[in-house]
Amino acid sequence: MTTVNKASSLEPSVGELLARREKLLGKNTPLFYDSPLHLVRGEGVHLYDAEGNQYLDVYNNVPNVGHCHPKVVAALTNQASTLNIHTRYLHELILDYAENLTSSMSPPLSSVMYTCTGSEANDLALRIARQVTGSMGIICTDETYHGNTTAVDELATLFNNGQSRGEHVQSVPFPDTYRPSVTGSMEECCAHYLASIDAAIDDFENSGIGLAGVVVCPIFANEGVPVPPTGYLQGVADRVRQRGGIVIFDEVQSGFGRTGKMWGYQYAGVVPDIVTMGKPMGNGHPVAGVVSSSELVDRFREEVMYFNTFGGNPVSCAVAQAVLNVIEEEQLVANAKEVGAYLQQGLRKLQDQYEILGDIRGPGLFIGAELVCDRESKRPASQAAAKIVNMMKDRRVLISKIGRFDNILKIRPPIVFSKENSDQLLDVLDDVLSHIEREGYA
Amino acid sequence: MTTVNKASSLEPSVGELLARREKLLGKNTPLFYDSPLHLVRGEGVHLYDAEGNQYLDVYNNVPNVGHCHPKVVAALTNQASTLNIHTRYLHELILDYAENLTSSMSPPLSSVMYTCTGSEANDLALRIARQVTGSMGIICTDETYHGNTTAVDELATLFNNGQSRGEHVQSVPFPDTYRPSVTGSMEECCAHYLASIDAAIDDFENSGIGLAGVVVCPIFANEGVPVPPTGYLQGVADRVRQRGGIVIFDEVQSGFGRTGKMWGYQYAGVVPDIVTMGKPMGNGHPVAGVVSSSELVDRFREEVMYFNTFGGNPVSCAVAQAVLNVIEEEQLVANAKEVGAYLQQGLRKLQDQYEILGDIRGPGLFIGAELVCDRESKRPASQAAAKIVNMMKDRRVLISKIGRFDNILKIRPPIVFSKENSDQLLDVLDDVLSHIEREGYA
Repeated sequence: MTTVNKASSLEPSVGELLARREKLLGKNTPLFYDSPLHLVRGEGVHLYDAEGNQYLDVYNNVPNVGHCHPKVVAALTNQASTLNIHTRYLHELILDYAENLTSSMSPPLSSVMYTCTGSEANDLALRIARQVTGSMGIICTDETYHGNTTAVDELATLFNNGQSRGEHVQSVPFPDTYRPSVTGSMEECCAHYLASIDAAIDDFENSGIGLAGVVVCPIFANEGVPVPPTGYLQGVADRVRQRGGIVIFDEVQSGFGRTGKMWGYQYAGVVPDIVTMGKPMGNGHPVAGVVSSSELVDRFREEVMYFNTFGGNPVSCAVAQAVLNVIEEEQLVANAKEVGAYLQQGLRKLQDQYEILGDIRGPGLFIGAELVCDRESKRPASQAAAKIVNMMKDRRVLISKIGRFDNILKIRPPIVFSKENSDQLLDVLDDVLSHIEREGYA
Repeated sequence: MTTVNKASSLEPSVGELLARREKLLGKNTPLFYDSPLHLVRGEGVHLYDAEGNQYLDVYNNVPNVGHCHPKVVAALTNQASTLNIHTRYLHELILDYAENLTSSMSPPLSSVMYTCTGSEANDLALRIARQVTGSMGIICTDETYHGNTTAVDELATLFNNGQSRGEHVQSVPFPDTYRPSVTGSMEECCAHYLASIDAAIDDFENSGIGLAGVVVCPIFANEGVPVPPTGYLQGVADRVRQRGGIVIFDEVQSGFGRTGKMWGYQYAGVVPDIVTMGKPMGNGHPVAGVVSSSELVDRFREEVMYFNTFGGNPVSCAVAQAVLNVIEEEQLVANAKEVGAYLQQGLRKLQDQYEILGDIRGPGLFIGAELVCDRESKRPASQAAAKIVNMMKDRRVLISKIGRFDNILKIRPPIVFSKENSDQLLDVLDDVLSHIEREGYA
């Protein structure tokens, strides 16, 4: 996910920044690239460094409608200069946004609890599930990350060798159909992965911990956007509900149009009990939230005084509303679908050319390109992935990598990304892959 | 802290907003006042409702430098239209702000970890303390609140009848010298309260949980700003450190000048190992953080990948820097001290007149006025407190109440509050108290 850098033979200004950073923010503070980027400006799909170089941003999913979108900045400025206050007073914007947000969702997803970050949203979702079920057990996948609070960090198997950190969390193998942990038909594969859900629930019941629910990203973003077997997610939801648990979809990455549908659960075809959201919701402004049924929210609020000082303030709601408006006005959900398909088609053409591109997959504008040393053994080409990401950066295109082997190129631009932008990405990737093939990789 | 309202005989527009609110945000979503306020604008120490009525804000500690301060809004607008991105790229503002922030603090408080909310900051502080000590036990007071995440909510004794919610948390009586839980001299009182710290540590050690640290607000804001016995906080810090624990001061309310010192720990005269901050840091913009020694941060980051997507982005840092600049330019720390003293003097004059004002106390512009039915028995005048808060609102002055008996008037304006503002508050309070005295109270 990240690399950590030390000041060494870098140009003085970057070296100086690194030294100050280590002193002021601490060692091991996450930083991208072998030679880190010093960015000063953003506009649309482009970022600019201190020397004026333009980069094509194919990584950042927070500035979803484009860096510094003028309508979003205008809404921010307008409301910040009018009133910024907590939600214990009445304010129309808070309600208008909740109405517009939930109108894009399916019943019974109708009630909003505002937070500031996706981590807070996931933490709150865990609190709701545990409060209403009276049980503590949460199921997640074995290569995931849902945020940074104490409780949510217990799910962070991605940074913990596939193990969850707490006794109240059971991790199950994510539904990997590229490297399935069982041989056989898709139906058998699906049954295999679903059996681990049953086993986790059994464990919770047998140990007396009990089942609170499941938390998954409906597109398994941090797992490397695997294509799950047909019926897998519905099977998970059915099993968890049958045993009294709550189905939580973490849509911090899959929400707001990226998949070519407004919500990842629509793309996946399964309606959860709780949706959490964050990153792109305010295009960079810290606003996030939990949407669920009125019934769940009311049951939770009957027992628990939950208040979030900054959560859902009029400024955050004005910004989030502007983002929603831009998504609609610029038809960005359709754009994500169309450009995503175009880009994926281009990547498949490169796949014909380069052995290393083992698998191309993913919904809309969240594409994973899994790199392998050869397609037979599927040995992860992790070092090559790191090299490619850095070489792309040197050629002014920003992507990243992900997955348990850190070998999946993560292609996830702002969803205003165009076909022309895709062509540029494909050209540069082509160039980099040709170098990599010539030099060999591991 | 809050009251919950239902739509009833209110004016149509407020009634309509309440009905929509219940549907969209859920029942029991916290709301102020018997007849809630519909606010539309803020400027300096004033708020305005939908009908254009002006209110003097003596409650809100988030818009610390005044509602919608033009310099803060300008910094927000400027950076939001230039670049808003996470901290895994280099950016000067992130470092400049960390430098300026920590230069206002004492060694070894020199390293910043950015978050978005005070809750996240306290959650992270718990993670650091538990990670570096290898132990889980946290001590807090029995009438406190530090935030809303799962882990931090375990400390929320204020909403849980003085009991902490988790086995890893021990609550101790807060140092109440107005209603001390022991008779005797101040020295004996101090020894009594410190003994409960020893007992909590013993409990943690005996149970095998072990001591991670203590979390307190250095001015005990949520406890009702009691005046602790001399030497109490130093005694707490000494005891916790002697037994291997980390001293965490939650400065979400006491930080950024409110006490008449920049930091609550300076007011209290004790340097902690970790300071957490939030609310006023961005004057309403969601920015918060943890400051500690480089050593603690480095030890934590060696083991843990902590990343906060929105935390410390250039927009948040630009806003926070503007707040810091305004505090300095407008000499608001000195203002908080001077106006706080003036206001407290005025309240003491009212105390001569009104029996109900049992105790006036608090640092700078965080003043608690504890209401009692009579000064002999000190029976809490909780109903009167609720009545007074609502009557003040009807007279266009916003205050609130706090404390285990909900009988302490909370007087905590933006720190740009002037002597003229104080006079207005005192006049209105005088008027309300004269009504209350005539009508009787319980």
